[in-house]
Amino acid sequence: MKETVNEFMDLLREQTSYGEAIGLIAWDMRTKAPKKAMDNRSEVLGVLAQKVHEIQTSEAMRNCIDKLKGNVSDPVVIKCLEEAEETYNKTAKIPKDEYRAYVTLQSKSESKWSEAKAQNDFAGFLPYLEKLVEFNRTFADYWGYNGHRYNALLHNYEPGVTVELLDQVFPKIRKALTELLGRVKEAPAQPDPSVLKGHFPKGQQTAFSKEILKRMGYDFDAGRLDETVHPFAIGLNVNDVRVTTKYDESDFRTAVFGTIHEGGHALYEQNISEDLSFTPLATGTSMGIHESQSLFWENFIARSEQFWENHYPLFQTYAPDNFRELSLNSFFAAVNEVKPSLIRIEADELTYCLHIMIRYELEKALIAGDMDAKDLPSRWNDKMEEYLGVRPDTDAEGVLQDIHWSGGDFGYFPSYALGYMYAAQFDAQMREEIDVDKAVREGDFRIIKEWLKEKIHRHGKMKKPLEILTEVTGEGLNPDYLLRYLETKYKHIYQF
Amino acid sequence: MKETVNEFMDLLREQTSYGEAIGLIAWDMRTKAPKKAMDNRSEVLGVLAQKVHEIQTSEAMRNCIDKLKGNVSDPVVIKCLEEAEETYNKTAKIPKDEYRAYVTLQSKSESKWSEAKAQNDFAGFLPYLEKLVEFNRTFADYWGYNGHRYNALLHNYEPGVTVELLDQVFPKIRKALTELLGRVKEAPAQPDPSVLKGHFPKGQQTAFSKEILKRMGYDFDAGRLDETVHPFAIGLNVNDVRVTTKYDESDFRTAVFGTIHEGGHALYEQNISEDLSFTPLATGTSMGIHESQSLFWENFIARSEQFWENHYPLFQTYAPDNFRELSLNSFFAAVNEVKPSLIRIEADELTYCLHIMIRYELEKALIAGDMDAKDLPSRWNDKMEEYLGVRPDTDAEGVLQDIHWSGGDFGYFPSYALGYMYAAQFDAQMREEIDVDKAVREGDFRIIKEWLKEKIHRHGKMKKPLEILTEVTGEGLNPDYLLRYLETKYKHIYQF
Repeated sequence: MKETVNEFMDLLREQTSYGEAIGLIAWDMRTKAPKKAMDNRSEVLGVLAQKVHEIQTSEAMRNCIDKLKGNVSDPVVIKCLEEAEETYNKTAKIPKDEYRAYVTLQSKSESKWSEAKAQNDFAGFLPYLEKLVEFNRTFADYWGYNGHRYNALLHNYEPGVTVELLDQVFPKIRKALTELLGRVKEAPAQPDPSVLKGHFPKGQQTAFSKEILKRMGYDFDAGRLDETVHPFAIGLNVNDVRVTTKYDESDFRTAVFGTIHEGGHALYEQNISEDLSFTPLATGTSMGIHESQSLFWENFIARSEQFWENHYPLFQTYAPDNFRELSLNSFFAAVNEVKPSLIRIEADELTYCLHIMIRYELEKALIAGDMDAKDLPSRWNDKMEEYLGVRPDTDAEGVLQDIHWSGGDFGYFPSYALGYMYAAQFDAQMREEIDVDKAVREGDFRIIKEWLKEKIHRHGKMKKPLEILTEVTGEGLNPDYLLRYLETKYKHIYQF
Repeated sequence: MKETVNEFMDLLREQTSYGEAIGLIAWDMRTKAPKKAMDNRSEVLGVLAQKVHEIQTSEAMRNCIDKLKGNVSDPVVIKCLEEAEETYNKTAKIPKDEYRAYVTLQSKSESKWSEAKAQNDFAGFLPYLEKLVEFNRTFADYWGYNGHRYNALLHNYEPGVTVELLDQVFPKIRKALTELLGRVKEAPAQPDPSVLKGHFPKGQQTAFSKEILKRMGYDFDAGRLDETVHPFAIGLNVNDVRVTTKYDESDFRTAVFGTIHEGGHALYEQNISEDLSFTPLATGTSMGIHESQSLFWENFIARSEQFWENHYPLFQTYAPDNFRELSLNSFFAAVNEVKPSLIRIEADELTYCLHIMIRYELEKALIAGDMDAKDLPSRWNDKMEEYLGVRPDTDAEGVLQDIHWSGGDFGYFPSYALGYMYAAQFDAQMREEIDVDKAVREGDFRIIKEWLKEKIHRHGKMKKPLEILTEVTGEGLNPDYLLRYLETKYKHIYQF
C-alpha cells in the first residue's frame, strides 16, 4: 500500500509541477512577455495543459484511486484522493470528442467576445454564447446534481453552495440593500469624490502600495508586485505568490485598493501549510473563500476609518499636494462614496452584490432552459434598471462587460457575493476574539494576519468552504453580518 | 511514412515545448523570481528536464528514427533525425545509474564550487572536480572518438573541431599574440582608462544600451532587456529572445559592451527561420558560432573607431558631465586599452584568447589522464605567468574563477577562442561584400544585420559550424584574420 501511496503522490507532484510551469507562463504572458511571443507560447501552454489532463485521467491515476480509497489513514492523502477522484470523474463523464469541441469553442469564444465588446455587437457573439450555454447544460446533466441543474455548475466553484441556499439568501440581501441604497441617496451628508482628483505619479502609488502590502504581512521574499492590464494575484507555490496591479495616474484608488485586494488573495496563498506543497490541496479552497480574503483586506480593513486614521499621514507623504489640505473626514467619506453604476468591477460595497444577483438570476434561467441567450440584453437592461436604477445605453457596458461567460464560466459569479458574506462573518467573529480596531489603528496587522492564517489560510483545500465558515464562525451562511456591517458603515458616513 | 513523420515531429514539438518552459523558468529564476521561490522551482525544473530526457530516449523516438532514417527527403526532417539520433545515442550509451549519479554530482558540485570560490578553498572543491573529470573521461570512452579522447567532449560544443585542429591553430595565435602584447606594452601612445570614470546612473546606461540594441536591429516586440547578476541572452522561441545585463554605475563599460555582446547572441536567435520552430534546429548551431555573433557586435563593431565617430555624441547626451570634455580619440583609445589581467571575463580583445588556451591545455591533459586535478592550481598559476605575465595570489582569482568545470563542462572553453576567429573571418568576408565602415559610420546597421541573417542566422542548426564558416568565407578555420585585425587595430591605437 505504501508503494501505491508513493506512486499516487508522485503523480500529483508531476501534475502540480506542470501546473506551476503553466502558472509562470500565464504570469509572464500578462506582465512581461513581448507581444510577438504569444503565439508560440500558447502552443507551449497547450502541451502542458494536455499533459496535466493526461495525468488526471490516466490509467495509473485510476488504479491508485481504486487501490487506496478507504485503505489509507493519512488525512492529506485522503483529501488528495477525494480531489483526484472528483477531477477524474468530472472528465471521464464527458465524451472525449465533446470535451475537445468545447475546448476549441472556449478559445474561439474569448476572442469573439473581445471583438464583440469592442464593437458593441452582441449579435456577433450570440452564436458562441448559445453553444457555450448548451455545452454547460449538457455537462451538468453528465455530472449529475440534486435539485436545480445549476447546482452542478455551482459545485465547480463553491462546493456545498446550492440554488436552494442562494434563493434563501439573495432576495433578503436584495431587499435590504435596495432599502439601504434609498436611505443613502436621501442622506444629508453626501461625500464629494472630486476631492480625490490630482495627478498621482505611478512611482509614488507603487511606493505607498508596497508599504501597505508589507504592513499586511505580504512577504516580498516570496512574491513581487508588477503592472498589468487586468490585475490578478497568482500562487505559483507557497513561496512564490505574485501580485499585479494597474495604475491610473488621475485616480489612485485603482492601484491602491486594487493592490490591497490582490494582496488579500496573495496572503491566503502565501500562508498555506507547506505540508500541502506539490498536491492539489496547496491552493485556496474555493473562489468564494478566496474572495472573502481579498474583500476583507480591501474593504473591511482598508476602507475603514481606523485604517485611515493611521495611514492618511503616510498616504499624504506620497500623494499630490492637494491632499495636504484635504481633511481625513472628507477623504474617508470620498473613498466610501456609494453610486449605482453600470460596471460591476467599478461598483461600491453597497451596490456590488446587486450586480451579482442579476448575473445569477440570468445564468440560472439560461442553464435551466427557462430563457434563451438571445433575450439576455433586454433582460439584463431591465434588471439593471429595476435593481440599480440605471440602464445601459449599449451592450458593451451591459451584458457584454464581463469575460466570464465567453470562457464558459457559468456558476462563477455567485462566489463574489458569497465572498462578501463570508468576509463579513469572518470579520464579526475576529472582532469577538481579538482587538481588530486597535491593530488597524496602530497599523500593526500581525494579529489579524495570524488569525486568518490559523483559521483559514493554512488549511488550503483540506476543508470545504462551508466547513471552514462553520468551524470558524460557529454558523452557516448568514447574510445578516454583511447587512449589519454595511448599515453601520453608511449610517456613520452618510449620517442618517 | 507520412504518419511516422508526423509522429516524429509531434515528439519534437512536445520536447521543445518543455524546453521552452524550462527556458522561461531559467530566465525568471535569474531575473525576477523571489528568493524563497527557488527550492520548489528547482523541483519543477527537474520534472520538466526529466520529461525532455524521457522523450529523447523513448521507444517511440527510437522507432521513428529507425523507420525514417534514409527514407525521407525533406531536409528539415533529415536534420532533425540526425539531431535526434545523436541525442538518443549519446544518452543510450551511458548506463542509467551512472547518468543519474552524474546529474546528482553536477548539482552538488556547483554549490560546492561556489562556496570554494568564496572561501578560496580549492581543496574543498577538489574531490568533486576529480569525480567530474573521471565521469567525463568515462563518458568520452562510451561515446567513442577518433584521435584524442578530448575530441569526444569538443564534439558536444563544436562538432567538427578537433584537438588536431586546435593544436595547429592555438600555438600560432599564442606566439603572435605574445609578440603583439610585447609591442603594445612598449608602444608610445598608452591609453588612459581613468578618463572613463564618473558616476553614470543605471537609468541612463539602460536608455543608451536600448537605443544601440534598437539600431542593431534587435526587435523589442520579440524580446526585452532586464537586469541580472551574470548576464546572458536566451531564446525561448524565435519571437521571444531576451537579453539581460548588469550595471556598474562607476563603469559604464560593463553594461554597454555587455548589452551589445548579449544583443549579438539575441540577434542570432531572433533571426532563425520560423520554419525550424518547435524543432531542435531552432537555435544557434554551436557555442563558437554563437560567440562569433556576440563578439562581432561587441568588438568588431562597437569598439571600432567608426562606431564611436557616429555614436559618441549620442553617448555624451546620456553620460555624466565629465565626458563632455573628453575627446573622441581619448575615449576610443581608453575603451580599447590592453592590460593583461587575472580574470578571463574582464580580459581585453588581445589577451582573451591566451586565457582560453591555458584552460584548453589543462583540460586536454586532465581528460587524457596526463595530469591530476590536484595539480591544477600550480599549473594554472605557472601558465598565467608564462602566457600573460601575471600570477594569481589566490585560487579564487585563479583556477576557481570560472563556473564551467563545476558543471562538468569540459570541452566548452575552446569555443570562446573559436568564436573570435570565426568573427574575424566573417568580418573580413563581409567587408569584401558590403561597405561595413559606411554603415557603421552612419549608424544604420541594416545591411550588416541582413548579411548575418542571410549567411548565418536563418540556418539555425541546419548547418554545422565549419560548414557555415566554409560556405560563407570560402575557407576553413584560419587564425590569420584575427591576428591581422588585432595588429591593425592596436598599431593604430598604440601608434607603433
